[in-house]
Amino acid sequence: MAGKRNSKGKPVAVVVGATSKWQADGRNTKLAHGKAVDDSDLPVGIRWGVGGAIAQKFAKEGFFVVLTTRTEANASGLAAAIGKQGGDCMIVELDLARQDSVAAAFATIRGDAGDPHVLIYNAGYLEGRDLPPEKELLEHIPVEMFDATQHIACRGPFLVAKEVLPAMRKRGEGSFFFSNNSSSLRGRKRMTGQSLYYPRVMMRTLAQVLTEEYSEHGIHVANIVIDGLIDSPGTHALPRARQNPDLVMNPVKIAEAFHYLHTQDRSCWTHELQLTPFSTKPSY
Amino acid sequence: MAGKRNSKGKPVAVVVGATSKWQADGRNTKLAHGKAVDDSDLPVGIRWGVGGAIAQKFAKEGFFVVLTTRTEANASGLAAAIGKQGGDCMIVELDLARQDSVAAAFATIRGDAGDPHVLIYNAGYLEGRDLPPEKELLEHIPVEMFDATQHIACRGPFLVAKEVLPAMRKRGEGSFFFSNNSSSLRGRKRMTGQSLYYPRVMMRTLAQVLTEEYSEHGIHVANIVIDGLIDSPGTHALPRARQNPDLVMNPVKIAEAFHYLHTQDRSCWTHELQLTPFSTKPSY
Amino acid sequence: MAGKRNSKGKPVAVVVGATSKWQADGRNTKLAHGKAVDDSDLPVGIRWGVGGAIAQKFAKEGFFVVLTTRTEANASGLAAAIGKQGGDCMIVELDLARQDSVAAAFATIRGDAGDPHVLIYNAGYLEGRDLPPEKELLEHIPVEMFDATQHIACRGPFLVAKEVLPAMRKRGEGSFFFSNNSSSLRGRKRMTGQSLYYPRVMMRTLAQVLTEEYSEHGIHVANIVIDGLIDSPGTHALPRARQNPDLVMNPVKIAEAFHYLHTQDRSCWTHELQLTPFSTKPSY
Amino acid sequence: MAGKRNSKGKPVAVVVGATSKWQADGRNTKLAHGKAVDDSDLPVGIRWGVGGAIAQKFAKEGFFVVLTTRTEANASGLAAAIGKQGGDCMIVELDLARQDSVAAAFATIRGDAGDPHVLIYNAGYLEGRDLPPEKELLEHIPVEMFDATQHIACRGPFLVAKEVLPAMRKRGEGSFFFSNNSSSLRGRKRMTGQSLYYPRVMMRTLAQVLTEEYSEHGIHVANIVIDGLIDSPGTHALPRARQNPDLVMNPVKIAEAFHYLHTQDRSCWTHELQLTPFSTKPSY
Repeated sequence: MAGKRNSKGKPVAVVVGATSKWQADGRNTKLAHGKAVDDSDLPVGIRWGVGGAIAQKFAKEGFFVVLTTRTEANASGLAAAIGKQGGDCMIVELDLARQDSVAAAFATIRGDAGDPHVLIYNAGYLEGRDLPPEKELLEHIPVEMFDATQHIACRGPFLVAKEVLPAMRKRGEGSFFFSNNSSSLRGRKRMTGQSLYYPRVMMRTLAQVLTEEYSEHGIHVANIVIDGLIDSPGTHALPRARQNPDLVMNPVKIAEAFHYLHTQDRSCWTHELQLTPFSTKPSY
Repeated sequence: MAGKRNSKGKPVAVVVGATSKWQADGRNTKLAHGKAVDDSDLPVGIRWGVGGAIAQKFAKEGFFVVLTTRTEANASGLAAAIGKQGGDCMIVELDLARQDSVAAAFATIRGDAGDPHVLIYNAGYLEGRDLPPEKELLEHIPVEMFDATQHIACRGPFLVAKEVLPAMRKRGEGSFFFSNNSSSLRGRKRMTGQSLYYPRVMMRTLAQVLTEEYSEHGIHVANIVIDGLIDSPGTHALPRARQNPDLVMNPVKIAEAFHYLHTQDRSCWTHELQLTPFSTKPSY
Repeated sequence: MAGKRNSKGKPVAVVVGATSKWQADGRNTKLAHGKAVDDSDLPVGIRWGVGGAIAQKFAKEGFFVVLTTRTEANASGLAAAIGKQGGDCMIVELDLARQDSVAAAFATIRGDAGDPHVLIYNAGYLEGRDLPPEKELLEHIPVEMFDATQHIACRGPFLVAKEVLPAMRKRGEGSFFFSNNSSSLRGRKRMTGQSLYYPRVMMRTLAQVLTEEYSEHGIHVANIVIDGLIDSPGTHALPRARQNPDLVMNPVKIAEAFHYLHTQDRSCWTHELQLTPFSTKPSY
Repeated sequence: MAGKRNSKGKPVAVVVGATSKWQADGRNTKLAHGKAVDDSDLPVGIRWGVGGAIAQKFAKEGFFVVLTTRTEANASGLAAAIGKQGGDCMIVELDLARQDSVAAAFATIRGDAGDPHVLIYNAGYLEGRDLPPEKELLEHIPVEMFDATQHIACRGPFLVAKEVLPAMRKRGEGSFFFSNNSSSLRGRKRMTGQSLYYPRVMMRTLAQVLTEEYSEHGIHVANIVIDGLIDSPGTHALPRARQNPDLVMNPVKIAEAFHYLHTQDRSCWTHELQLTPFSTKPSY
């Protein structure tokens, strides 16, 4: 595992899924544009989507940030950027589909960084996006595709929760935030080109469960509904983003919302925060 | 597989999970009472809980009913009762945790009964009920227990939907109903003695997805929220049921609600039906 | 007040707003078509919209039906039809905007028919429909228009509830149903041509209040969300109804849903029932 | 009308209902404690409840604050405190039950302060609180009491919206926030001692309407659900607050949440913000 240890004893923020499928060389970027894109003229705050922006924000606010990713190379640019900004971070490889990988990653985190104070579950998936129009209906979704979504949206969050909540509970404080989208609000028809997103409701439901179970132990749980297109190298170049810049959400500002939640006084905690561009109607 | 074939060419209603964990010798009954109970003085309509009542109702209404169950013996009493009432049914063994079992069961159903006109997903689970008070929080739920709930509440319905929807869609009609409970409405704290029920929201969410995808193809999809304690041999003998009979729901009447939904004119379909005893406030 | 007394001692069903703005000579019909339409070739079940269909259904099921309307002449055709079908009914004039009118009408009902067993609140309004596109935003809605909606959707139901609930509570049974639409589910932008419908949420909210307060007293309260275009002389002739008959809801079938609710066993009551044509996605 | 004019040309924040029924000499305080209480040892931030805290916060952030109240004397202490803190404000008398009063108050505001940049609707009522247990059910609520709630929760917000939205729309920016409580989320049984709060859903619904209508014009609309007991001189002295300080919400922190909303980037606006003490489960 790459990165340095938390030698300054900073509080620890873990971003599960710190990189973006829409970063310059991300999977969605390549799928949408046929190749990687050049992000050298984009602000560093948006280069790794919302996960990268959250990581940079918490690093600036004094946290030692742990970036988890399937493959270390995906996060090396982000780690370098955080270092350049004077922040401290480490990269930990993590495959949410494997219980042993989750266990090993958090053992490393506890050993090298310490028990997390903030956990942001930002893992995503793109299964379903490349199904052709004649495969739009649920009956055509392959079981393997469904299983992949379960690992990210249902079982992964459960495994991660089991890893970090006991220490937060004993300490009597901590933040556990889910980075989610509008598909988490209810089941809808999947349209051609969209991911199979209905399992996302399980992330929201788990947030509701953990809110009821762990708030009284001092742990702030929240589901954040990012209700629009997030700026990033890959989305920035999409025709609909270029034609309607008012539709595009600034990940730096989204990251500020995550940090705001973390700073809320515990006499007035918010457990669901929806963020919508002014130009569109909020999803529900 | 037991039972006879659909020799009279009746329309086919499949009840997935036709038996009850609260029947006279059911798992919940034994867990709550320490032994099987005697159901000989109970009306036959309530002896196998809501699954059994639905099966009897659709049989009376002229359907050939397929009873799926993990082990044929569990459903033999119910099958005999349906036969005595002049109905026709067959038993098919089905393990929702195994994709090959789901495939084999529906191959049998299609071969021996025909393509289903009505599918009622009534499978349940009791994982979590026997966890002691000191294991109440989510961090103490074993992963195996979580996985078991996923098979019944998330993956099982997906697999079953893939089996039955294509033929319903081609025929331009059919009913696909989910028998659910109030835990499907949102995530809540699990209290000691309760099952790990938050994955039940996925059944409701899938019902919402299928409603949006398949209604226009003539398939009536609905989530039925049974919002209280269902009468059955095992629940009948519980102290809280004996002391507050007004809390207890009559499965015969619940079954009538399922049948009412099936008979709704397609110009006014209901896609979620909550049933609550008059003496309690509806869950939400 | 017209009509006869409940001389046979039938149970009493009151339909508040029994006529339709879309009946042959209704206000909406005249607004949309420029004149009254001929309904002589339409089935009698749909001639007075959903209010008329409910009245006919309950009359057929053995109720003495009270038709309330602003002006008796509006309901005379409906009353005649019910009589021809062998039913019994009376017409009572009622102006929901005036507390004294509500009091007088229910005094008449109690005196001539008896305490209601079933109350269906089906009053509607069309304020806002004729505002031009440049008056679409809320800032352009005249205060008088807002006040008119308050009388029908907020204050009227409160006044009617106060009139009928005490006797139902003392008897330990009764049904109080709200005939509502999808605007009752949440606030939305009013589009040009639509009524100012956001106050409709108060009808639904009152249904929720009364459900929690009166169910335990044996009174079945429900909000019925009619989620589409209801067939009637005026809507039947609309271009969008003629071009898309699958969008049109049969009021006879809607009325059956109201009656089904009334017949539900009190161990499994439904407190909200949404009805949606199969060809459209349910509102939420 | 008291106070000075906005001579420094500051942006204008109007707090409708800036004082508190729980302030030292407030109506609720006197009702609960039998007399006014001494607030001299309480921090100035909490002396006038959430309305006063919001006024102080926006004054500190550079706004000219308009305090509306039924009677100027109610707000004089708050105005003095704001002045002492270096802020600028004025008091405007306003009776939400009278259209002419609303019109006159906003004419004054526009003339003496200027068009509002921020409008916080914080008006409340206590109708219903002193009904005895035998008057708990809705049938016992006097019509006058219902009418009073309509003026504050339904008609008042409509009138105020009509006053301030046109100028905000023309300017292309503004914030319109509703200070609400958990009764705005759905209808519930009123328990003895509680206000008749179900009309509060109309404030939330109006927020949803205005969000859909005015966001695209640059106006940030939000419903803030304050989901617990707010600290103030009157609530501070309640037995349940003294025994469970973890239940009590700090109005200074609530005010910060209102200000945070106002500062959100318009690419990620929140339209509903619920605030709940960590020690309790969030309402829904």
